[in-house]
Amino acid sequence: MLKVGVVGASGYTGIELVKLLIAHPEVKLVAVTSNAEQGKPVAEIFPALRLQTELSFYPHDTPLLMECDVIFFASPHATAMHQIPHLYAEGKRIIDLSADFRIKDAQLWQEWYGVEHACPELLAEAVYGLPELNREAIKSARLVANPGCYPTAVSLALMPLLKENAISLDNIIADAKSGVSGAGRQAKIANLYAEANESFKAYGVSGHRHLPEIQQTLTAMHGDESVGLTFIPHLVPMNRGILATVYANLLTKGLDLQNLYESTYATEAFVDVMPSGSLPTTASVTDTNYCRISVNQITGQSKVVIVSVIDNLIKGAAGQAVQNMNIMYGFAEDAALTPFNC
Amino acid sequence: MLKVGVVGASGYTGIELVKLLIAHPEVKLVAVTSNAEQGKPVAEIFPALRLQTELSFYPHDTPLLMECDVIFFASPHATAMHQIPHLYAEGKRIIDLSADFRIKDAQLWQEWYGVEHACPELLAEAVYGLPELNREAIKSARLVANPGCYPTAVSLALMPLLKENAISLDNIIADAKSGVSGAGRQAKIANLYAEANESFKAYGVSGHRHLPEIQQTLTAMHGDESVGLTFIPHLVPMNRGILATVYANLLTKGLDLQNLYESTYATEAFVDVMPSGSLPTTASVTDTNYCRISVNQITGQSKVVIVSVIDNLIKGAAGQAVQNMNIMYGFAEDAALTPFNC
Amino acid sequence: MLKVGVVGASGYTGIELVKLLIAHPEVKLVAVTSNAEQGKPVAEIFPALRLQTELSFYPHDTPLLMECDVIFFASPHATAMHQIPHLYAEGKRIIDLSADFRIKDAQLWQEWYGVEHACPELLAEAVYGLPELNREAIKSARLVANPGCYPTAVSLALMPLLKENAISLDNIIADAKSGVSGAGRQAKIANLYAEANESFKAYGVSGHRHLPEIQQTLTAMHGDESVGLTFIPHLVPMNRGILATVYANLLTKGLDLQNLYESTYATEAFVDVMPSGSLPTTASVTDTNYCRISVNQITGQSKVVIVSVIDNLIKGAAGQAVQNMNIMYGFAEDAALTPFNC
Amino acid sequence: MLKVGVVGASGYTGIELVKLLIAHPEVKLVAVTSNAEQGKPVAEIFPALRLQTELSFYPHDTPLLMECDVIFFASPHATAMHQIPHLYAEGKRIIDLSADFRIKDAQLWQEWYGVEHACPELLAEAVYGLPELNREAIKSARLVANPGCYPTAVSLALMPLLKENAISLDNIIADAKSGVSGAGRQAKIANLYAEANESFKAYGVSGHRHLPEIQQTLTAMHGDESVGLTFIPHLVPMNRGILATVYANLLTKGLDLQNLYESTYATEAFVDVMPSGSLPTTASVTDTNYCRISVNQITGQSKVVIVSVIDNLIKGAAGQAVQNMNIMYGFAEDAALTPFNC
Repeated sequence: MLKVGVVGASGYTGIELVKLLIAHPEVKLVAVTSNAEQGKPVAEIFPALRLQTELSFYPHDTPLLMECDVIFFASPHATAMHQIPHLYAEGKRIIDLSADFRIKDAQLWQEWYGVEHACPELLAEAVYGLPELNREAIKSARLVANPGCYPTAVSLALMPLLKENAISLDNIIADAKSGVSGAGRQAKIANLYAEANESFKAYGVSGHRHLPEIQQTLTAMHGDESVGLTFIPHLVPMNRGILATVYANLLTKGLDLQNLYESTYATEAFVDVMPSGSLPTTASVTDTNYCRISVNQITGQSKVVIVSVIDNLIKGAAGQAVQNMNIMYGFAEDAALTPFNC
Repeated sequence: MLKVGVVGASGYTGIELVKLLIAHPEVKLVAVTSNAEQGKPVAEIFPALRLQTELSFYPHDTPLLMECDVIFFASPHATAMHQIPHLYAEGKRIIDLSADFRIKDAQLWQEWYGVEHACPELLAEAVYGLPELNREAIKSARLVANPGCYPTAVSLALMPLLKENAISLDNIIADAKSGVSGAGRQAKIANLYAEANESFKAYGVSGHRHLPEIQQTLTAMHGDESVGLTFIPHLVPMNRGILATVYANLLTKGLDLQNLYESTYATEAFVDVMPSGSLPTTASVTDTNYCRISVNQITGQSKVVIVSVIDNLIKGAAGQAVQNMNIMYGFAEDAALTPFNC
Repeated sequence: MLKVGVVGASGYTGIELVKLLIAHPEVKLVAVTSNAEQGKPVAEIFPALRLQTELSFYPHDTPLLMECDVIFFASPHATAMHQIPHLYAEGKRIIDLSADFRIKDAQLWQEWYGVEHACPELLAEAVYGLPELNREAIKSARLVANPGCYPTAVSLALMPLLKENAISLDNIIADAKSGVSGAGRQAKIANLYAEANESFKAYGVSGHRHLPEIQQTLTAMHGDESVGLTFIPHLVPMNRGILATVYANLLTKGLDLQNLYESTYATEAFVDVMPSGSLPTTASVTDTNYCRISVNQITGQSKVVIVSVIDNLIKGAAGQAVQNMNIMYGFAEDAALTPFNC
Repeated sequence: MLKVGVVGASGYTGIELVKLLIAHPEVKLVAVTSNAEQGKPVAEIFPALRLQTELSFYPHDTPLLMECDVIFFASPHATAMHQIPHLYAEGKRIIDLSADFRIKDAQLWQEWYGVEHACPELLAEAVYGLPELNREAIKSARLVANPGCYPTAVSLALMPLLKENAISLDNIIADAKSGVSGAGRQAKIANLYAEANESFKAYGVSGHRHLPEIQQTLTAMHGDESVGLTFIPHLVPMNRGILATVYANLLTKGLDLQNLYESTYATEAFVDVMPSGSLPTTASVTDTNYCRISVNQITGQSKVVIVSVIDNLIKGAAGQAVQNMNIMYGFAEDAALTPFNC
């Protein structure tokens, strides 16, 4: 059994990861940490885990992490980068769900995250953990930067078109919508029930931290040129789910878009291309690791509209992290990720 | 024009009061206070008030309060009692939406609220502001203790039966359900959208602060004896509304309950007795000052089940406060309380 | 008092109109119709109207309509066009909230609505009731085609730019999101609570009926050329509200967009241009006739992103209809449309 | 592999059952039926099942049922009773999730369900499938009447007290609250999103069909005497979950209620007695087969208040049905019922 730990396990992505790892047949969950809840049983803070685990929260610096083979970080950004170097030096394999190692350019990271990067020397080591793009590199990675939720939904929506060089690289628009769990489990007035319920809003119009991450990924997908993007996130009054509506201008006529998407993702277990003419709902991927994608050409226009949906906490975070671990260790890629076991 | 001020205007009941007072034809809103938001325009914190008011938040001790005829307190409990004595001494009339002057027994208040009462000498002056019970006293009151939200819903449900001495005084059960705005506009994890949404729970089973308030009111309604009560509140995933399901055992057979309720409330503008056999929804009173009540005798049993609904922020707080002001000053009792002006 | 009637009053826009008209100081509501609910008191079907009206639903062909000065139609599309000609011939003024007279081209209308237009001769008479565009024509109109909800939000978002000829006429994208009441009060499985709740989806990607209406309006705003548009609607799990996120490419640099929007709407009572850098929420316009708009230039790009919000049932339907009536009769334009009267 | 079929698989409980059976390690799902959706792939109607099953819906009378060992009925009441006799005669084992075989008294059933029972001769054969009450009988049952959702929550809340003869048999009150999926997947206006959202209501005050079922079960639990009950159901704006707040009067003082509940359910895998002083949320059992129960004695009173929660579609329907099948065939009782496999 692989020994694993989760640092920052009392947030929404952290606890989701705990649920998946408890049910994973190849894994023993050795330690979960939370400075805020340290000493308390996990099941006391998250009663849905009653009867599922006897674990309690340890502080982030628990020596139990040294007993682990793999350590997941689900901590806020600018936290993991302080703790990872030591663990990395000790030979641990790391899957970081925070933003700390996603952006290759330390200077760019600093501009968006407002602090100096504590560990720029590991940025080159980090593999961006989008299996559909980087599966081979993930297999042997020692440090995986697990993608953000919006970047996962938007990048998978565009990958077939970018690899095919089929769209204009300017005029790409990603209008993305997320459930409220994406805002994290922090006590802020803006995230109160009576504030978010029965309301819908855009945010981050002046610039969202996922923008440079998406641009870097889209550029990697295209290969040759830098990809521009207008990215506007929105908040939906629901717990979970992201839907990205992505607009682009086609460069060539006559491309069979449905076939392009189906063939690109033919071997991907967790990307489901919807039948032509049908559109996915976020509810259809809730509690699953799937990304469902619909590609649509607007009649009489050169516009393509791609709609993709994920569960922001699963394929957008914890599920993708487990998928990456499965790839790193040669487990079945869907181990612990099969839906509907109640 | 009556000059009024609102202390603690940046909570959910406070801002609701501000909305009502802005629209009140007999009133000029002179000052609104919030220590947390002081200096900021009201419409910046509550964008729904853009174009409606130019007011900004003052600190709680603003001298503008001295220019007011009436001062509303919508502050947390154990706050108003420190500020009210001075204003009262200066001749101001006070409508306190907090719990500070609701319970007549200072010792009992202290047991439930955990601090010594700062101003027990005014407790006897305070009139409990339930118009359907105390309209005459409210007219000349200088200090009105505005009822709590649960107490309003439960007390109005039981008043006809208690005044008629028609039910057993033990075995009264009030199973009450409230929307999340009842928890206030405070940054707490338990009130986050992703915590409260898609969930339902009971709370306060070991004792809720509204219990002694309700018992005091029910006892006043009955007149002779102390009334027992089991009161269990619940949290509903919706913004607004309280529904109380109240159970009691009838003492006498053959009473025409529908007639009793209709006649008791015949002259009350804001209590609506539902037709026999129909039940009210909370949505039917949202944004209104109505309490709708359905009284039902269970076939073959001596049980009566009363269902009452209010908007917790209107009849359960700000609307009732305005109703009390209207009574105090001889305004039309429904001034600023007519529904559906968009 | 102006005598008015509402045909099709038992839908969500119809009943909203009834609420506004009951509270309107210059109006007497003479008749409301619903074939489905005929004979039943309005307040029985909509308990929120208890104590507000004694009216019952009449059948659509009630002779009471002949006693009205103005008749509103809130019926499904392809219905009003059969009944309006006769009333029009009798000298009634008509405000049609359905789609029947919005599109000037009968052939185009037929393509999108699937039936032949029953009354093409009145299309030229109909004034498109967007006050911010057509106020002068509305004043003397005998037949007003009240705009659709999406078209209102999208058109107001773009009007300043189109009138200024400031954007490229291709590459305009409107990504719009609506609450579920927009789907109407019809018993369909897709609109059940358990289907729509906790889910988000796009729909109508292959073509939504509001597309030709918006294109016609945008073209009228621009004046010279036909305006292209990609329009994708989405369904939000909330009762009310539309948010449109509109993307366009600026033709010229250095335009002060904030100033353009503020000056365009300076005299409009119901369009609120948000301060630079702030974004509106749908909740901020719930139960009001406001459209709030935020205009944003994306740094380093020639892209402009406009975010507009309305209440789909008020400014997007019933409120705008009342605003049009107010203009037609010289009433205060905000009569019955002032927010916050409880 | 056990061959199973589901009749009436396109409702909310039916499709939940399909999900569980697909994931069940000992089961092959041979046929699912729906007259309304016959011929269509399950995954087309329920996109969450894409990639999970290739099954399509057959009509209810498909001969494939004859190939099954066990047939589940998730059809509306008064339907299964027509089809079951033939299958029963052919030696099939039946688990009926409808109400047809729950009530032992055919005359009483007819009074509540409004039609004559088509198959009264099998009522005596039917075992009421509440494992915590009837596990031994379920093992060998050929026809299991799977309990209703409310009856499951209320009965498990009261079983320890009734078996101990610890409460007065009159003055038992069950105030129960259910999410909207309990109303089924039928196109009714009352169940539309815009009707049920942001509202809370009681219903069935004059008598709900689950009342006689609960009374029969409580009486069986007590053993000696007929148990009275006041049962009021309520509708909560959320998809899933039931919470029952149950009130009773204790007959004896000094009973250790916490210990009574813990010992009663010590060997039950799916009943979780909450620690003293803590209360369960419906969210904590969503998508699980657990019933969590909190027992509370009100200080200074002889009242006991029990709060129980279940997922109405799992422990209240499909999960309990699978639990019954597991018992009938000696499978692990939690097969396919372990939570958190994503």
